[in-house]
Amino acid sequence: MQSPFPPLFIFLLITAPAQADTTNGVVVTKSASQQVSIGSPETFTGEVHVTSRFQRAAPARIGGGDVTFDAKARTAWHTHPLGQTLIVTEGEGWVQHWGGKAQAIKPGDVVWIPPNVKHWHGATSHSRMRHIAISESLNGKSVEWLEHVTDDQYPADTSN
Amino acid sequence: MQSPFPPLFIFLLITAPAQADTTNGVVVTKSASQQVSIGSPETFTGEVHVTSRFQRAAPARIGGGDVTFDAKARTAWHTHPLGQTLIVTEGEGWVQHWGGKAQAIKPGDVVWIPPNVKHWHGATSHSRMRHIAISESLNGKSVEWLEHVTDDQYPADTSN
Repeated sequence: MQSPFPPLFIFLLITAPAQADTTNGVVVTKSASQQVSIGSPETFTGEVHVTSRFQRAAPARIGGGDVTFDAKARTAWHTHPLGQTLIVTEGEGWVQHWGGKAQAIKPGDVVWIPPNVKHWHGATSHSRMRHIAISESLNGKSVEWLEHVTDDQYPADTSN
Repeated sequence: MQSPFPPLFIFLLITAPAQADTTNGVVVTKSASQQVSIGSPETFTGEVHVTSRFQRAAPARIGGGDVTFDAKARTAWHTHPLGQTLIVTEGEGWVQHWGGKAQAIKPGDVVWIPPNVKHWHGATSHSRMRHIAISESLNGKSVEWLEHVTDDQYPADTSN
């Protein structure tokens, strides 16, 4: 499927620059001023859009964004050195760790992926899925990307 | 206004126990299994409900939740040792740091409150406001609560 976004906006999620903390006051980044990025085909399968991206500078270390997966879209297998929290806000999706069964996720569900657990998350085959994703960086790195989730690994439906 | 929740569910946000990280796999906390808590009158003004609360154990240090403020409801003044990020998901609200002007916030806006900046956030006088709030704990503490936001300090409307 042709992406609605020009190549300029295609970049890896892990390359989000740390936001310089040059203010002593509250910073509001308005929705209209935010760039929409799409998940790189190197680390995602299918159409994935990210808004509300943020990355805080030391001494803080959190970063994240609001991620929407079209039906069938998903991350590649990956790990986070300090874990990741997902808050599902729309649709129906899956999360699965290596060697485990895919678990269905829906709005309001909160997901904890412990440090260094190989996993993937994404939409079901018939519904988009949207979640807020937050992770902490360790030595400037918050994710290690691995191989793609193959069509054989991807669940056929939500009947679990 | 009478709270729809019994006193059992009234507790300070800062007393959320760290979630023991006793698993090597993904943990999904289903929406239906989550307790709804309300903001304590010691640290909030008005009706504030919190769902999807989480607190990760070391080596992770993030915690947060999905917070809904009824119209006119707001936090007390407070600070976070490692800052706080808000992602607004519904309604219209305010965020303000001490000595600064109240800034209007709407869905999709992302707010950064730097470490140790005295501030408050909440709904406008005519609309509820909902946001995801995430902060990092330092030595087990993620917030220091201060005095309430008085009616004189609270903005009269959203005309800014």
